Amino acid sequence: MNYEAYLSPLGRALHESVLRRMGQVAASRGGDVISLAAGYPDPAGFPWDEFREIAGELLSGRDGSVLQYGPTRGYPPLIESIIGVLLGRGIAADRSEVMTTSGSQQGLDLVARVLIAPGDVVLVEVPTYTGAIAAFRNAQCRLVGVAQDADGIDLDALDAACVRARAAGDRVTLLYLVPNFQNPAGTLLGRERRSRLLEWAERRDILIVEDDPYGDIYFDDVASGAETRPLKADDRRGRVIYLSTFSKTLAPGFRVAWVAAPVAIVDRFDTAKQSMDLMCGILDQRVVHESIVRGVLDRQAAPLRRLFRLRRDVLTQALDDQFGGEMTWVAPRGGFFLWARLPDGCQCEPLLARAIDRGVLFVSGSAFCVDGSGHDRIRLSFSWPTPERLREGARRLGEAVRAELEARAQALSHPGSQALPFEAPPR
Amino acid sequence: MNYEAYLSPLGRALHESVLRRMGQVAASRGGDVISLAAGYPDPAGFPWDEFREIAGELLSGRDGSVLQYGPTRGYPPLIESIIGVLLGRGIAADRSEVMTTSGSQQGLDLVARVLIAPGDVVLVEVPTYTGAIAAFRNAQCRLVGVAQDADGIDLDALDAACVRARAAGDRVTLLYLVPNFQNPAGTLLGRERRSRLLEWAERRDILIVEDDPYGDIYFDDVASGAETRPLKADDRRGRVIYLSTFSKTLAPGFRVAWVAAPVAIVDRFDTAKQSMDLMCGILDQRVVHESIVRGVLDRQAAPLRRLFRLRRDVLTQALDDQFGGEMTWVAPRGGFFLWARLPDGCQCEPLLARAIDRGVLFVSGSAFCVDGSGHDRIRLSFSWPTPERLREGARRLGEAVRAELEARAQALSHPGSQALPFEAPPR
Repeated sequence: MNYEAYLSPLGRALHESVLRRMGQVAASRGGDVISLAAGYPDPAGFPWDEFREIAGELLSGRDGSVLQYGPTRGYPPLIESIIGVLLGRGIAADRSEVMTTSGSQQGLDLVARVLIAPGDVVLVEVPTYTGAIAAFRNAQCRLVGVAQDADGIDLDALDAACVRARAAGDRVTLLYLVPNFQNPAGTLLGRERRSRLLEWAERRDILIVEDDPYGDIYFDDVASGAETRPLKADDRRGRVIYLSTFSKTLAPGFRVAWVAAPVAIVDRFDTAKQSMDLMCGILDQRVVHESIVRGVLDRQAAPLRRLFRLRRDVLTQALDDQFGGEMTWVAPRGGFFLWARLPDGCQCEPLLARAIDRGVLFVSGSAFCVDGSGHDRIRLSFSWPTPERLREGARRLGEAVRAELEARAQALSHPGSQALPFEAPPR
Repeated sequence: MNYEAYLSPLGRALHESVLRRMGQVAASRGGDVISLAAGYPDPAGFPWDEFREIAGELLSGRDGSVLQYGPTRGYPPLIESIIGVLLGRGIAADRSEVMTTSGSQQGLDLVARVLIAPGDVVLVEVPTYTGAIAAFRNAQCRLVGVAQDADGIDLDALDAACVRARAAGDRVTLLYLVPNFQNPAGTLLGRERRSRLLEWAERRDILIVEDDPYGDIYFDDVASGAETRPLKADDRRGRVIYLSTFSKTLAPGFRVAWVAAPVAIVDRFDTAKQSMDLMCGILDQRVVHESIVRGVLDRQAAPLRRLFRLRRDVLTQALDDQFGGEMTWVAPRGGFFLWARLPDGCQCEPLLARAIDRGVLFVSGSAFCVDGSGHDRIRLSFSWPTPERLREGARRLGEAVRAELEARAQALSHPGSQALPFEAPPR
């Protein structure tokens, strides 16, 4: 039976997350695979003892609401403790402006459903997060990419893109960006640029979707907490929809994230979430809430910063050893990722096939670029593998790159020969 | 700032779940409120000791994947144990045909997004589950209601509705129904009608969305397990999308439910879920999986059937005591709900205001009826309150009904006087 005829237009056009597909590749290959692909935090850094103790207390059975249905907006004490977390970031939010989401991915989906009309132009950075690309594209919009430099998004290019799209008759109401340790580029949006961006949004009548999963993970040799102050903290006009999560600082498995946004938008998100999944897992919410009030979350931050900074050092050193300057990157100042430019003549798609053969995974740069660029880039994650695995991963990657460059050179000198096919870039 | 201009067409048209709103009413009123509104299972029936033990073991830290990102489709061993649960219901499913969802509500949302095009006609029972109404309406379809009798959906009326819609040029590809202990009507679809329904779906080229949260909760004085055999068990043609959940048999707070459907549809659902929330909470999935393999789920069934059957007896007896036959219903043969017809002259919307004043909640019948009917009905849930609370709830409801009837009688004899305003029916 062919089900194509039963699908909705969206059902036919659905966009797959390239990261999810990489996960399937990793799982299906089996054997010894080192994944530098997915941005998974190292479970060795999770506060297991605290979680076990908290869950044990919550599951005593004394409080039936621990496993009951609850409000769509979130467990009310958790909303209060999230307000405290926001205050620590300089954001003063009322409880009517905060709601929980099933991961930040659901926050992106809420943005897509409630704020993006089919045919809209949505402005994003180049490169940008694949999960946002997939969610927004499923709302049938057109994504227009804006260049970044080492200080984040280029404001002149941004303004030009907005003006151009409007001149062509497009509706442009949203800019999506990751100001802190951008995924995948690792950049930190400059402080002066943040305030200019807010002025720009006001002048051009744009809402900003600020995605901030990594703000707490700054590397204190090259960045400070003060530099991660969210746009939302200075959002006097109600133009910023702020998304953040406990996935990187507590654990991803809980699927507890949140939105802070103007009441009118949060109300709509709440209504939308009612018919999407009713609520986030309540045990998860309660564990997260207890982790905040007992200080677990606060105590996590400094060790995690040290852990990931060390991993960054290991990976960058190992890559230098392998490539001796032939592979380049802007040094990440926080977060989980290194956005690397491949040696000349090397393209990410055929390289990926060689890398998989050698037991190392990365994500092709093109997956992050809505403008068709990125074929000379790859995203390497240093958040999960141990130092030894990072070094071995870099070694395997070095082998794959050298093999690919040799094959290219041979193909150039013997034009009739078979080179590896150039795969279509993932969406 | 007015955000209306930034909303998508869906964002503007979003449909609120009336059940969620009742929850807010209950929470905001405070004081002593007895809710006969929401279908919450009694937490006293949750297997707390087993959950605590399982969670304690899982959170030992020995297995980092317990709190890590995981496959969108679900934790693979859980998929296997769900296949076992399905086999117990007569359904033979391959692992490629099963995926987890964040509650059955997400299953409904997946159906809405992947299978419903704007303008489609979707066939539903009258009355039907409000969560399905909200999810489907958000896909901008038109819901066409089909009458039920004590044996479930009326097949002649169903066929007529389908033929009529198609003759009018509408696309009709989906029928949604709850065959086992329908929410809200409490009916059980007859066995002979089940096989005729499958033949009908084949003849009319329709996919059936079979929502089965309550199949395990049959009352053995009036129903048997054999009578709950899902349509999916006899679906030779791949026409049934089967939804079920652990919310009623383990606990709702875990948000772990599942879909069993043809591979082509599950694949699309998987892709859609990637950009919706990546995955269900993994600790929740692991606890549910362990609850299945350790026999907790199986051991729950018989005591829950006894518990809810007793509650049904208490509520029906208490209502008889209050109304002495003036309020009527088809006796529920399983599940959580009693679908009652109000005494003549009593309408659910003004009654609800009086009931809230007296500290008892129900859901207005009109919320479940897509054809504008149901104003003379209410849904009463007996799944959570203790026997004493059920009796007290029935007493308060009796007071509210008598007060409403008196006010109506006065208004009729004094036409100029102020009656309570008739509220617009909830969507």
